[in-house]
Amino acid sequence: MEHILMKHSFGSDNHSGVHPRILKAIERENSGFRVAYGDEDYTQKVLSQLENLLGGNCKAIFVFNGTGANVVALSPFVRHWESVIAPSTAHIIADECGAPQHFTGSQFVTVDCPDGKITSAQLESLFPYQGSGDNDWHHAQKRVLSISQPTELGTLYTIDEIKRLAQIMHSHGGFIHMDGSRISNAAASMGMDIKEFTNECGIDVLSFGGTKNGILMGEAVVIFYGEKQNPRNREIAENEMEFFRKQSTQLYSKNRFIAAQFEEYLKDNLYLEMATHANEMAQYLASRLSEIPCIKISKKTESNAVFATLPKELCNKLLERHYFYIWDESTYESRWMCSFATRKEDIDNFIEDIKQLM
Amino acid sequence: MEHILMKHSFGSDNHSGVHPRILKAIERENSGFRVAYGDEDYTQKVLSQLENLLGGNCKAIFVFNGTGANVVALSPFVRHWESVIAPSTAHIIADECGAPQHFTGSQFVTVDCPDGKITSAQLESLFPYQGSGDNDWHHAQKRVLSISQPTELGTLYTIDEIKRLAQIMHSHGGFIHMDGSRISNAAASMGMDIKEFTNECGIDVLSFGGTKNGILMGEAVVIFYGEKQNPRNREIAENEMEFFRKQSTQLYSKNRFIAAQFEEYLKDNLYLEMATHANEMAQYLASRLSEIPCIKISKKTESNAVFATLPKELCNKLLERHYFYIWDESTYESRWMCSFATRKEDIDNFIEDIKQLM
Amino acid sequence: MEHILMKHSFGSDNHSGVHPRILKAIERENSGFRVAYGDEDYTQKVLSQLENLLGGNCKAIFVFNGTGANVVALSPFVRHWESVIAPSTAHIIADECGAPQHFTGSQFVTVDCPDGKITSAQLESLFPYQGSGDNDWHHAQKRVLSISQPTELGTLYTIDEIKRLAQIMHSHGGFIHMDGSRISNAAASMGMDIKEFTNECGIDVLSFGGTKNGILMGEAVVIFYGEKQNPRNREIAENEMEFFRKQSTQLYSKNRFIAAQFEEYLKDNLYLEMATHANEMAQYLASRLSEIPCIKISKKTESNAVFATLPKELCNKLLERHYFYIWDESTYESRWMCSFATRKEDIDNFIEDIKQLM
Amino acid sequence: MEHILMKHSFGSDNHSGVHPRILKAIERENSGFRVAYGDEDYTQKVLSQLENLLGGNCKAIFVFNGTGANVVALSPFVRHWESVIAPSTAHIIADECGAPQHFTGSQFVTVDCPDGKITSAQLESLFPYQGSGDNDWHHAQKRVLSISQPTELGTLYTIDEIKRLAQIMHSHGGFIHMDGSRISNAAASMGMDIKEFTNECGIDVLSFGGTKNGILMGEAVVIFYGEKQNPRNREIAENEMEFFRKQSTQLYSKNRFIAAQFEEYLKDNLYLEMATHANEMAQYLASRLSEIPCIKISKKTESNAVFATLPKELCNKLLERHYFYIWDESTYESRWMCSFATRKEDIDNFIEDIKQLM
Repeated sequence: MEHILMKHSFGSDNHSGVHPRILKAIERENSGFRVAYGDEDYTQKVLSQLENLLGGNCKAIFVFNGTGANVVALSPFVRHWESVIAPSTAHIIADECGAPQHFTGSQFVTVDCPDGKITSAQLESLFPYQGSGDNDWHHAQKRVLSISQPTELGTLYTIDEIKRLAQIMHSHGGFIHMDGSRISNAAASMGMDIKEFTNECGIDVLSFGGTKNGILMGEAVVIFYGEKQNPRNREIAENEMEFFRKQSTQLYSKNRFIAAQFEEYLKDNLYLEMATHANEMAQYLASRLSEIPCIKISKKTESNAVFATLPKELCNKLLERHYFYIWDESTYESRWMCSFATRKEDIDNFIEDIKQLM
Repeated sequence: MEHILMKHSFGSDNHSGVHPRILKAIERENSGFRVAYGDEDYTQKVLSQLENLLGGNCKAIFVFNGTGANVVALSPFVRHWESVIAPSTAHIIADECGAPQHFTGSQFVTVDCPDGKITSAQLESLFPYQGSGDNDWHHAQKRVLSISQPTELGTLYTIDEIKRLAQIMHSHGGFIHMDGSRISNAAASMGMDIKEFTNECGIDVLSFGGTKNGILMGEAVVIFYGEKQNPRNREIAENEMEFFRKQSTQLYSKNRFIAAQFEEYLKDNLYLEMATHANEMAQYLASRLSEIPCIKISKKTESNAVFATLPKELCNKLLERHYFYIWDESTYESRWMCSFATRKEDIDNFIEDIKQLM
Repeated sequence: MEHILMKHSFGSDNHSGVHPRILKAIERENSGFRVAYGDEDYTQKVLSQLENLLGGNCKAIFVFNGTGANVVALSPFVRHWESVIAPSTAHIIADECGAPQHFTGSQFVTVDCPDGKITSAQLESLFPYQGSGDNDWHHAQKRVLSISQPTELGTLYTIDEIKRLAQIMHSHGGFIHMDGSRISNAAASMGMDIKEFTNECGIDVLSFGGTKNGILMGEAVVIFYGEKQNPRNREIAENEMEFFRKQSTQLYSKNRFIAAQFEEYLKDNLYLEMATHANEMAQYLASRLSEIPCIKISKKTESNAVFATLPKELCNKLLERHYFYIWDESTYESRWMCSFATRKEDIDNFIEDIKQLM
Repeated sequence: MEHILMKHSFGSDNHSGVHPRILKAIERENSGFRVAYGDEDYTQKVLSQLENLLGGNCKAIFVFNGTGANVVALSPFVRHWESVIAPSTAHIIADECGAPQHFTGSQFVTVDCPDGKITSAQLESLFPYQGSGDNDWHHAQKRVLSISQPTELGTLYTIDEIKRLAQIMHSHGGFIHMDGSRISNAAASMGMDIKEFTNECGIDVLSFGGTKNGILMGEAVVIFYGEKQNPRNREIAENEMEFFRKQSTQLYSKNRFIAAQFEEYLKDNLYLEMATHANEMAQYLASRLSEIPCIKISKKTESNAVFATLPKELCNKLLERHYFYIWDESTYESRWMCSFATRKEDIDNFIEDIKQLM
């Protein structure tokens, strides 16, 4: 257990607080009465803004947190005798205590992906038969692929990779989900609009993160139902997804206060501004770490995470002064996360401490 | 769908906003970095304050919302071949879209209770056999009783009633849960400390509400493990409940911001102050409604809800000017909720409108 | 625990053994090899015979037992945020240890029905709103009605009653399930073909029992998809129901041995012959019991069950000599089941014992 | 779909019928009445025989089939926020349509094992932390290891391997399950009593197969609770396992007819006689296949399965005359199963056909 309010933590981007503009927005909304559960104009207006940003032909709803977003996003697309495919490093596999597994009641099929990205060849090998699934009653039918952008290892899929994965799933009558708990960092790093690597690539359903990028609390689940998606999606978006949200405990009574945060988050691209800063800090950290001979960057730094291996003794000493996580106990590969609140001087201090400790 | 920011709503206590002191507390906490998921000193300190308020010998954790609190509270106590008993009007039965049923995977046994309160005679009739349950494999074993304080109908159990229900469940090796989404209103109305009608009555697990009483977002689940409780509770509290929270999607990464709200909520009894006001407004509304001959109070006004029957035509006209819910479509029995933000003049305006419309 | 092979038992129709013709049929099939899981001509041929008997436009599959049949029958029709309506005396509610509740992950709504039959008025009261369901996210949407024919209390729905219940469910976009674990007894008693009170009344899915009527082991689940049914059924029958069977553990590898039993069961109406005998024995028992002043028949004897109240002391003494169940501990109402193997002399002996004991 | 009653099939050991002695035993039991659900002396006597064979300190119950046995065996040992570890080739992972996943509501962690056997090194790598599990709420706690003996690939664990795996799981407070759907084949091949590689190695729970070895229908689930097992087992065996059986639809009303089969199965070691024959046929087939240069045995032939690769064209031609399964579409590795009913001449005919086709 960590005892003190820290000046800085590389432990996770959710160790940081809330952007002041977000808190102000909550305060502004705090007057008068509104119907609960988002069933009112204001929340619907903000959701429309989000839907427009994502290219339209979609329906967005708000939820509390990332695990909740993934549960709500996956559930409508997988019946309990079907299965979900995901890299074994995915958050839904490794870090959600079986929440998606329990709520969907479904089998999850994992694929080992050293950089966190499933390849189209790996995906195709899971469908050895021609046509749409093997239709063999003995097998949970593979229905949904879940990818993360960026991945848990901080890496990014390219537009072409996403399109190809979507195509494979659709050719088998299936769906593709994107866990975008850090989707703004992906957009900032790719220099693209979010819609370009989601809606326009054929993504069927998106977990749109906020909490890890300076929001107090709130994420969105977005179902796309344009021409690039599975034709079943529209019905799910219009008639089913809200029931999954309520049943999964993710329906917030005072929805207007997530709406207020998102309105501000999207305004003047605050979300991008924060994500860009976090990414830049990660780049800066990676470049400073590269100065040190015994430390080796171990994953491409493509978003706001830096992975590197370092000597065991150094690692343990550093952990006494700084907060970060050992990712792999066997190699002392460690992870440092930057956020909107990370400052250049926090990194400089960290590097200085390394140099001093060596 | 309701389109405007309303000056007042009797629709629900969650139509109101947030007490200004609560927002200030969030702002105060918003500096620096903290370890996520409540795994730090500050959140633990506030949880200890709550535990002390509830009489000790208990463990409290924070969750997002009321349905989530009920799911987290019930799950550790009922295995999927066991069942939960509840009045058919209970929130977990009538208004949570099957969330507790789905997450526990268990059967729920309902009892019809005109005033929302299950009687000890009704409960005893569910255990026709001597000893601890019938142990017949064909029957889901009845393990948990869930009561609400106040009930969905605004009524209150007495201390003696709660004790007796707890005693019956314990004598069968079972547990008793209290859904306290409006527990502060109960405390205010009963003129008692919350511990007196929970911990000290043998309640095993409590959903402790906040959102409906002026908090932005946050509830607690509390497991009691003193001498009056089922001896199994301590193990569940210490080793299991956190896994149920995570798996049910109710673990908030930035827990410190619920902690900040609760610290303020408990300080100088803010929770009681708000609840007392809401209750008083309900009493005032009930007394004003009594002035009107064609309106009949239909449930005891024991907390912040008022139930009354009124003529269909009057009801429909009133709904054009005020927000409230028809509770029973067949009798036009309606419900009005008061909150910390309801003002005497809101009620006076409402009564005037009634008089004008008649 | 019962220790001896009994000459006769009124405990349940599954206390009796297997009709000799059924065992012979198994023996006949026992040569050579067949593809497993029913994926072969012979099993398909017998299933077609059953489908024809039921009026066509349906798909039948074999399962192991009654609880399994109900789980397989209900699951495709109820998503986990929807609910199933049933009388509180239904086998799926009272005697299956929460199997349908756990496997569907859904809420079950119970209705108190003194004679085991839900009325159309009771059903309509569950749909207070116009149109197809209330579509309110807070409520598990009521999707399936489950009735039993005969009921657990031995009573029968009329053709008109079944039609009306089906009509109500279909008007709300829902489905109606019939638990027919004793369906042959219903057919024998009604003097009708089974299709007349299932397929032709709009029943969507049927649990077709066998084990309680002289079969070694085996039941069928039948989905109807004609003009009188919900239009969704055909897709479920053709593409989904087999997955539900496999996942619910009800797919028997050596399916051909259920097929062999059913072929014989249907041949020369063996099923009706056995059921008619069981019903006649029940009628005889009821008439003999009526001779005894202190015994009162308490439910209509419409199939192979007899219910009556008798003095506590007599009941307890009788239980030392005969096997039957007390149905209601408070009134000593008891149940006697007759089967294909019950002989007139078993009943005469029983009545004699009563007379002797009085 | 396969259309004809085949003279022989290598497709699976469940393509064969029933040993005549087993059918005779059913016939013998078919007289008089018995209490249902195994709650009578005769079934209990046969279960005691099975328990004695397995070394005592255990409780056995009967179920319908293999998938059912696995569901009943695993469920009591894994709570829904815990997980099950298994080789990715395991039947519970690859061939049960998500039944164990859905019924337990738990996450399953798979390990790639080329010969179907998980190694102790692989298992240890899943527990990177000291002590009993990592106790981190974000991770489904790894609680049960499931191994198959023989594996789906026909291979066998040694006594030492099983002991070591059990030891690892117990050291982490967990459990080890053995899927023994072909356990008699394992015993015959190892030349050991079943208890030596189950109970005495620390296996906590066993799926004891019968249907694949000449039984009509029936398997057993056995929980061991001796000194070599997890101390929690006894309570589960005595108070819980029956509820899991009923809720999973695996409780057969006429249990006495499984008892009759098992009594005969164990008598004079009929189970071993059939298994020994099947194993010998597999050895003979493997040796005959070795004569053919273009065919390569690809897995050790340690039970009644033979795996080999063969040229694509030969494979396809053979499939026109014989029934067997291609195991790996990419390499044309195929599987041939032998059973109690396989005769030497069936193999000779098969080899002749190969030679003719080449």
